[in-house]
Amino acid sequence: MEDWKSTYRLLTHCKHFFHRRLSPNFDNSKPFCTSGSRYHCSQPSELVKPYIGNYQQEFQTFKHLPVSLGTNPWNTCRNQYRCFASQATIIQRRPDFSTISSEDLSYFKNILGERGVVQDEETLDAVNTDWMRKYKGTSKLMLQPRTAEEVSQILKYCNSRCLAVVPQGGNTGLVGGSVPAFDEVIVSTSHMNKIISFDKVSGILVCEAGCILENLIAFLDNQGFVMPLDLGAKGSCQIGGNVSTNAGGLRLLRYGSLHGSVLGLEVVLANGTVLDMLGTLRKDNTGYDLKHLFIGSEGSLGIVTKVSIFTPPKLSSVNVCFLACKDYASCLKLLLEAKRKLGEILSAFEFLDHGAMDLHYLLCYVEQVLKHLEGVRNPFPSSMHNFYVLIETTGSSESYDREKLDAFLLHSMENDLISDGVVAQDITQASSCWHIREGIPEALMKAGGVYKYDLSIPVEKMYDLVEEMGVRLGASAKVVAYGHLGDGNLHLNISTPQYDDKILSQIEPFVYEWTSKHKGSISAEHGLGLMKANKIHYTKSPENVQLMANIKKLLDPNGILNPYKVLPPSLFTKN
Amino acid sequence: MEDWKSTYRLLTHCKHFFHRRLSPNFDNSKPFCTSGSRYHCSQPSELVKPYIGNYQQEFQTFKHLPVSLGTNPWNTCRNQYRCFASQATIIQRRPDFSTISSEDLSYFKNILGERGVVQDEETLDAVNTDWMRKYKGTSKLMLQPRTAEEVSQILKYCNSRCLAVVPQGGNTGLVGGSVPAFDEVIVSTSHMNKIISFDKVSGILVCEAGCILENLIAFLDNQGFVMPLDLGAKGSCQIGGNVSTNAGGLRLLRYGSLHGSVLGLEVVLANGTVLDMLGTLRKDNTGYDLKHLFIGSEGSLGIVTKVSIFTPPKLSSVNVCFLACKDYASCLKLLLEAKRKLGEILSAFEFLDHGAMDLHYLLCYVEQVLKHLEGVRNPFPSSMHNFYVLIETTGSSESYDREKLDAFLLHSMENDLISDGVVAQDITQASSCWHIREGIPEALMKAGGVYKYDLSIPVEKMYDLVEEMGVRLGASAKVVAYGHLGDGNLHLNISTPQYDDKILSQIEPFVYEWTSKHKGSISAEHGLGLMKANKIHYTKSPENVQLMANIKKLLDPNGILNPYKVLPPSLFTKN
Repeated sequence: MEDWKSTYRLLTHCKHFFHRRLSPNFDNSKPFCTSGSRYHCSQPSELVKPYIGNYQQEFQTFKHLPVSLGTNPWNTCRNQYRCFASQATIIQRRPDFSTISSEDLSYFKNILGERGVVQDEETLDAVNTDWMRKYKGTSKLMLQPRTAEEVSQILKYCNSRCLAVVPQGGNTGLVGGSVPAFDEVIVSTSHMNKIISFDKVSGILVCEAGCILENLIAFLDNQGFVMPLDLGAKGSCQIGGNVSTNAGGLRLLRYGSLHGSVLGLEVVLANGTVLDMLGTLRKDNTGYDLKHLFIGSEGSLGIVTKVSIFTPPKLSSVNVCFLACKDYASCLKLLLEAKRKLGEILSAFEFLDHGAMDLHYLLCYVEQVLKHLEGVRNPFPSSMHNFYVLIETTGSSESYDREKLDAFLLHSMENDLISDGVVAQDITQASSCWHIREGIPEALMKAGGVYKYDLSIPVEKMYDLVEEMGVRLGASAKVVAYGHLGDGNLHLNISTPQYDDKILSQIEPFVYEWTSKHKGSISAEHGLGLMKANKIHYTKSPENVQLMANIKKLLDPNGILNPYKVLPPSLFTKN
Repeated sequence: MEDWKSTYRLLTHCKHFFHRRLSPNFDNSKPFCTSGSRYHCSQPSELVKPYIGNYQQEFQTFKHLPVSLGTNPWNTCRNQYRCFASQATIIQRRPDFSTISSEDLSYFKNILGERGVVQDEETLDAVNTDWMRKYKGTSKLMLQPRTAEEVSQILKYCNSRCLAVVPQGGNTGLVGGSVPAFDEVIVSTSHMNKIISFDKVSGILVCEAGCILENLIAFLDNQGFVMPLDLGAKGSCQIGGNVSTNAGGLRLLRYGSLHGSVLGLEVVLANGTVLDMLGTLRKDNTGYDLKHLFIGSEGSLGIVTKVSIFTPPKLSSVNVCFLACKDYASCLKLLLEAKRKLGEILSAFEFLDHGAMDLHYLLCYVEQVLKHLEGVRNPFPSSMHNFYVLIETTGSSESYDREKLDAFLLHSMENDLISDGVVAQDITQASSCWHIREGIPEALMKAGGVYKYDLSIPVEKMYDLVEEMGVRLGASAKVVAYGHLGDGNLHLNISTPQYDDKILSQIEPFVYEWTSKHKGSISAEHGLGLMKANKIHYTKSPENVQLMANIKKLLDPNGILNPYKVLPPSLFTKN
């Protein structure tokens, strides 16, 4: 213990621990983590490319078949890049949906012009495929409206023709929610990307749905404000999609969910009605607050076209520390202490277990060998620990915040909650700490096959699942856990040398049943999409699901909006 | 300027400014403002009693007639205590609603026992009358279920019999939402008042709907946590009612609305279905987030029976200052500075204008003369100012927070944003500052007739309405403004010697039209209830209102839940 205290004290006064800036694009003049410092890239392909390396051949064999073939398409994938959570349920194209005719194309060209109607194969291939390359539709048409009125005309027409529609923002979702299952018309929000207004007194931003999150973050940064939402995909994802999926991300612990931040929406319903709920007020108790129906409904109730969001002022002081704990109980005690001692300045509390840290070392190795780059240094070179915690504080006073953090760390050390730890001394070191946490998903992709589960579980029980899964799978797979401990969000990953139906049958439905038994959620922040539409009953009661279906039928009687997603398709089968 | 700086510095080091503890019940051992320091009292009658005084006779002439008489009942009120916002719209009892029969009573006694079926006149008189004594129903029956299952049995039966129901919590609402309009069965949540669980790691509280807010605040205080909701009526209001009305209150600036804090609900629908949405997770993206439909729908879609809510850790350091500004523009600049400089510790930013401060002095005078008590001292005895601002900070470090506040005040003084000011030196002084702000509604009641409007307006334009109203009314009335400036919530009050139809016609519909024109809300935090059900169109578009009506019909096809409230009754007239 005394050794570690000395180490801690040494490190807090030593700037040489982290040797390099992780991202060559990182701009030191900006607050850390606003650009380039996370694992995000501006185009999905850019993320995938660097890791293709020697695996190029395997990637070429990764063929995505349309779900409409009637067999489980994933069974045809034979390589190690299959990192989806569940086997997709076999679904059938709804026979009552029309197919695109030349008259339809003429109509759309008439209202959108030639450039708003996209039919070229290369573009369609990209927008038919999801970010993880797990799902691929066969849509022959993408529409790019520029106004809510154009969206209204599109939907009114599609509704009358019974043409199915999939709304698409940045297409960065992880559950197949933003790509067609079959030949749905893709309605892209990308060309609705204007910032409409910003009120510097109230901090209320109004913008179109297609604004890219990172652009909004940069805009607000210039105004001295901060977006209450941040996530890895910020360079591609759009605010309309963020709202439609109720994106969680890295700032939820501090700023809460979008149900609290979003003040208003403009949404176009399936019948073309433009629903103006675009309030810019923090308080409005006039009738039912309908906008919440569209936050997190994954585009199945309407297409979000404008967003009004409350943004807090930017705070200048950021501290990051990376700590080691001997057991999960210590992590929980540390969380409680952090909430109490750091109080209003606590902005992130992430955790990873030793399995995840192993992957971090693998990532370092791969980077060094394949990319000839110096890897991220091991923050604790002398020993391995069972658990690691990343804590971030954000406040308005550098000296006070740092003193608070130091007092908290000292207290935690004295109470044996921490076994080891480092405190970032500058923006580069802080960025490196984040890189360790955020590098895990990439490392998992390189390590072989991976079954990914995004779960919410009461924190006291959260790690029990990881341990039970470890016992259950034995030596056949490696169970890796990390996530947003401060929000009770576990990212459970089961890493295997290659995809194996036998292993999958040991994981599922066990993982869903366990989560359900402990009153958890089978989707904390990713949504249900195509992947888990049929698994909603593990978290929601039949009464809930039935009411959701009734609301879907009320708002979209023909079911044209993002069909097969969110809710079990069987609920909408016509007799 | 220099004089004021000296004054400020003097006051910050002087403990003699406030001479007395304002409330004899105030407990110094508790954090300030948690008990007895605000204008709340445990029973409505206790609040009214002290002010009856010499006006006893007028009170006795204040007869409330049932709305069913078919004339505007308020026209029959002739005394100066008529402090409602609008003339009530004439409504008729829906003829398809049944009336209570002896068989109904037998059924209810069978499921609830004798003590759960209340028919005595005195109790019924109290629960038929709202807190402001503006609305009075004629219900002959109050039911007091103890479980969600009993609520389910009641509603299932009422639905089958087409018996109208009004859910009632603490009955502290201000828009007539919690009392019957006619003879609706009152379903009280008062006997469902157990705390079910509290998780000290996550800060998640689960309790029954009938828990009184003040009890929850006290419970959490003992656990080292804080309720993200606080309001004047906390000693009577119940959490189920708070959720159903989406109560705003004094902590919204810091902790956001209940749409962000409430994690789960159990709700009984009109047909008796118990909808279990009682999640205890901060993140859950499995399907539509239905609970938001019930937050703020004023009991018209279902009866809330259990609540799960996220509570932040209690912070030990509280500072309060009371400042004077020369104009409204300075108040706005000060708000911006406070958000920026105080950042994460800012917890309240309230304002009042000189008219409101005049009333404060009147209150002091009335207290001194009528109650022989020493009044609240004038914080700025030497001069009057145009505007006053109350700022509260809450943080985890007393010395740091105070230094931050001092730096902010110094900066604001140097930039001429503040004309004068005092900083509370202890809990008693802080309480006194709050008393000035919170005493205004009481003072208004004593000053004569008062027309009250609870509005949300973008802050830049907010005070324009007050000024325009002043010009419009001239010498015939006094326009008084105060409210939660940090949330954009204006409490506009027009004080007159007595009620006058001519003055009312100058105020309405002007005030609603002005608010609507500036994209404001005609109900920021009070809801619509009976009072403003027909005025919803000033804030919400026809498409919004129609969708609300469709959702109401979906969830409550017979319209038995809290009829005549929230939405225009004409939408539910059967052809």
